Amino acid sequence: MSGTAIASPWKKAPERRHERELKREAVLMAAARVFSERGYHRTSLDAVAQTLNVTKPTLYYYFENKEAMLAACVQHGLDLVEAGGGAEPANGATGMARLVAYLTRYAEVSETDFGRCAVRISDAELSEASRKRVRRIKTGIDRRIRDLISAGITDGSIAPSDPKITAFALAGALNSIGRSHQRDADLTGSKMIGQYIALLVNGIAPR
Amino acid sequence: MSGTAIASPWKKAPERRHERELKREAVLMAAARVFSERGYHRTSLDAVAQTLNVTKPTLYYYFENKEAMLAACVQHGLDLVEAGGGAEPANGATGMARLVAYLTRYAEVSETDFGRCAVRISDAELSEASRKRVRRIKTGIDRRIRDLISAGITDGSIAPSDPKITAFALAGALNSIGRSHQRDADLTGSKMIGQYIALLVNGIAPR
Repeated sequence: MSGTAIASPWKKAPERRHERELKREAVLMAAARVFSERGYHRTSLDAVAQTLNVTKPTLYYYFENKEAMLAACVQHGLDLVEAGGGAEPANGATGMARLVAYLTRYAEVSETDFGRCAVRISDAELSEASRKRVRRIKTGIDRRIRDLISAGITDGSIAPSDPKITAFALAGALNSIGRSHQRDADLTGSKMIGQYIALLVNGIAPR
Repeated sequence: MSGTAIASPWKKAPERRHERELKREAVLMAAARVFSERGYHRTSLDAVAQTLNVTKPTLYYYFENKEAMLAACVQHGLDLVEAGGGAEPANGATGMARLVAYLTRYAEVSETDFGRCAVRISDAELSEASRKRVRRIKTGIDRRIRDLISAGITDGSIAPSDPKITAFALAGALNSIGRSHQRDADLTGSKMIGQYIALLVNGIAPR
């Protein structure tokens, strides 16, 4: 008689991988919260561990060190902006309509802990390798905004200007959302974002 | 026969005070340059001293410590914005005209080392006392911008909006000038400031 399978108390590999991924995400979310509130230097990994009811060594199972954790937070914030492709109107839309969709996404991400990390913490805190990676993503976002402005200028939905300076001004304005201390309820949420975007849209619309 | 006055090799008190003031200013300018380039944590007072051809102990004659030096830099940057009163058009001017003058001044100061210090370095680096002083000046600047917006809304030169959010967006946009790395010549100087201000002015103008 062949033996019946013994129920293993260990989880199967795919399940373990999935669980590890979930835990890594939880560490990242906790880290983003603490980094964005306290800044890089004043963040202790003990504080991050505490919010998850684990000890510091557990964190090292997911991230090599504090810098790697910061780099992952910043990268995730930037990825969220770039992942906003789905929020864009169909391709036939004007440059302005596509730009507005992109900037709205940018503004919304800026209010999240990840977005706040990406904006508030200087690239100088990152390792050389992380800094290069992060700068590449930032350059991509800047290029995307410039391209949408150029498309709008070409189709007449946006007033002529130097797209480089305009992109710099638009992103700069929106970054201040991630920098605000959120102590002031009037300066958060969809009403603020709506008025903010309206100001910028009027600013670049043909007159 | 009364003796003729002996020429003292020591300078007189007013002259000494004046010289001390000049040297203090030189220290402040050197510190602002290094702080704005390297950030607070990576700035060593040795580097500041080196740019002035003095030793570190000499700096302590003018500022108690690194934090006091930073606080003085930040405060000076903010004072430069507030001191721009002279650049404002006469009182009969519209809210918009007065706001534009104030924002232009704000943008110009943002490009200086002092402005860059005020914008780039987190208030969290300051001592409790300095932070309170700096926040009081920042609140004053914010209030000034809001008041000019409100005046413009009242006299019809600015489109109706929530002045608090609009002030936040305008200052946020301009702060990105002080945050930029100035590696890019296209994103500095009067052309950039002109286009930047034009965008914001169009953004808040009645349509």
